[in-house]
Amino acid sequence: MPEFLHLLPPADALEKFLDALPIQVQTERIAAVQALGRVTAEPVLAPHPLPEFNRSTVDGYAIRAADTHGASQALPVYLTLKGEVPMGASPDFEVESTQCALIHTGGMLPPGTDAVVMVEHTQAARPGEVEILHSVAMGENMIEMGEDVAQGQEVIPQGMRLRAAEIGGLMALGASEVLVARPPRVGILSSGDEVVPPGQRPAPGQVRDVNTYTLSALVESAGGIPLQYGIIPDNREAMFSAVAKAKEECDIVTVTAGSSASTRDLTAEVMDAQGEPGVLVHGVNVRPGKPTILAVAGGRAFIGLPGNPVSALVIAGLFVLPTLRALLGLPRDRLQPTVSAQLTLNLSSKTGREDWIPVRLHASTAGNYRAEPIFGKSNLIFTLARAGGLIRIPADANGLSAGENVAVFI
Amino acid sequence: MPEFLHLLPPADALEKFLDALPIQVQTERIAAVQALGRVTAEPVLAPHPLPEFNRSTVDGYAIRAADTHGASQALPVYLTLKGEVPMGASPDFEVESTQCALIHTGGMLPPGTDAVVMVEHTQAARPGEVEILHSVAMGENMIEMGEDVAQGQEVIPQGMRLRAAEIGGLMALGASEVLVARPPRVGILSSGDEVVPPGQRPAPGQVRDVNTYTLSALVESAGGIPLQYGIIPDNREAMFSAVAKAKEECDIVTVTAGSSASTRDLTAEVMDAQGEPGVLVHGVNVRPGKPTILAVAGGRAFIGLPGNPVSALVIAGLFVLPTLRALLGLPRDRLQPTVSAQLTLNLSSKTGREDWIPVRLHASTAGNYRAEPIFGKSNLIFTLARAGGLIRIPADANGLSAGENVAVFI
Repeated sequence: MPEFLHLLPPADALEKFLDALPIQVQTERIAAVQALGRVTAEPVLAPHPLPEFNRSTVDGYAIRAADTHGASQALPVYLTLKGEVPMGASPDFEVESTQCALIHTGGMLPPGTDAVVMVEHTQAARPGEVEILHSVAMGENMIEMGEDVAQGQEVIPQGMRLRAAEIGGLMALGASEVLVARPPRVGILSSGDEVVPPGQRPAPGQVRDVNTYTLSALVESAGGIPLQYGIIPDNREAMFSAVAKAKEECDIVTVTAGSSASTRDLTAEVMDAQGEPGVLVHGVNVRPGKPTILAVAGGRAFIGLPGNPVSALVIAGLFVLPTLRALLGLPRDRLQPTVSAQLTLNLSSKTGREDWIPVRLHASTAGNYRAEPIFGKSNLIFTLARAGGLIRIPADANGLSAGENVAVFI
Repeated sequence: MPEFLHLLPPADALEKFLDALPIQVQTERIAAVQALGRVTAEPVLAPHPLPEFNRSTVDGYAIRAADTHGASQALPVYLTLKGEVPMGASPDFEVESTQCALIHTGGMLPPGTDAVVMVEHTQAARPGEVEILHSVAMGENMIEMGEDVAQGQEVIPQGMRLRAAEIGGLMALGASEVLVARPPRVGILSSGDEVVPPGQRPAPGQVRDVNTYTLSALVESAGGIPLQYGIIPDNREAMFSAVAKAKEECDIVTVTAGSSASTRDLTAEVMDAQGEPGVLVHGVNVRPGKPTILAVAGGRAFIGLPGNPVSALVIAGLFVLPTLRALLGLPRDRLQPTVSAQLTLNLSSKTGREDWIPVRLHASTAGNYRAEPIFGKSNLIFTLARAGGLIRIPADANGLSAGENVAVFI
């Protein structure tokens, strides 16, 4: 039986895994000015309308629209200047019919007015009088109280990662605190008898641990807290006790397997022994990353990643990040930022399997990119360090053609 | 004369401004494990080759390729098993002609061997003997020493923002420290007599300060250090001394003008008084953001931003971020991550002026988005808080059509 008939595609594997994982978003209340990048754990409602008063959007004269009816260059309307609206204060006068008040952008419309004539459409007449050269409709050149945000309106939904604009929105409402998701803790365990810490000079046959650091960086960028458990010896007892310890301290436990098949099987066995339901997925129909393991036990997520650094990072993007997002209360559908580029070479791919190919991005003309696939059997981390992003060849395609426009996931 | 004939388009204004700004990247040496998101200030060279030894990429048998010549299912070649390569150690034996050694993925090829036969292409024969069912070429199923990275090769260029992959690359080389650009300091000054701090309940006619916080968040996300100078009173003396103080302490000084024309002129006047060459650009052919001011004095960058929060944030994206990037030593051409979406409505635009329109993103089918323009005369910050991103209507277009595919800048 061909392999793709019994291995799940990445999207189905993820769904099966997340469906089995009990999601409880942990929350904390923090200062709004420190909430950049955090995810809201409840909707933010407006405590008062915005703007809080009728506000001019131009420099000009606050008037009653009805007074300007028929006004034109040829037939101006003459209004009496009642006064000037001070910035940042409530005008202490009312404007009656055939009167007007000088107003600046952002100023508060005086009682009695319902529109603003732009200064460009007026002309100084005799002292204390203004010529109106253009008619305006009620509400023109102004924002009504509550027009932007009504009192009690939801202004920021639950499960939204706060950007600069939302931080500003919280400030506009005077919200000094905000309820956000606590960052999930992600345990990172490396294995492989050939792996040594980066500070150590590898003896012949050894390699430095890379996965602990790439995964930590990825988790950190995505709003999680990486907890490093170091390099675990390739034996059942050591691996079991390390995974069991991480399970107590973390929301997600990741293990990058050593490169040999025996270590990978050990990872699956140890994860399965952590409790029910145990291993849900062992092997995914994707390249790189076939030996991925997904397990749930005791309400925790366990993800077994391939040992080679490129596969580990690609698979972490496909499984660790979505799990982290779920625990942050973010929607399952992820907005995937991409750069559109023209593929430089034909790429072949086995139908029935999803492929992820690292590409180098070259700027051709302003805003246009060429995507050059990076080949290399080594799968060492510098393949990705040279890459601007990854392109995806879907399972139902047997390749991509040179010159085709592709979305580069960055 | 139409306005677009004397106002510079944003790209030209930026070029004129950056060309006049002396760029000196300040540097510091930091721990590689803490360098995520930082920008390299010198190229990183490999202190040794990678891999450091000939390494197997599969589970199988290390052999001499010549010995497998002509091997097939029908006519296997029989080799003597010399031993097993231990993981993480140098094999203590040599493999001679007609011999082979059991090897695991990542294992070091023993002296005398030049390729690996996958275990799937072998069969156990008598004890101490292996049947080879497939011929291999020299170098097959292995990575040669230095094949991924040669000694002294540039592995990370200067001026690159470090992602997870590069952090991993530094670890693979045992680089514990890295020289990076010091984060530029960006002074943030607000003005406008109607503006009050967010903690204060605005009196009628007043609004809360939003720009200080949106700009701080933007600067922080981009790798700069925001320094907040608060709300400066709308008079020449106060503004001059605040800007002069910020000039001493910051690399970039931003002032968001109050909403009235007089305050905007004051900002330009105060910036021009800081030294040579002074104000270079006063007004840019873009909407929103026409009243933008760009100045250089005493080697510092000064950017005057419109007072309304949407314009301020859009213009900060067009001018403050590129300046920050320049001071970080990043290339001027910026990789702009976008989401491709289908526009839901016709959008008209004045030819000759660049327009930026906030859009809401709706997922239609998996990976496909619809971009719905957000209109609203208010320009309050919630316009952007509701937006998934911005679309750009170039100066030479008079609009975009419903159904058209657009790039949404996120």
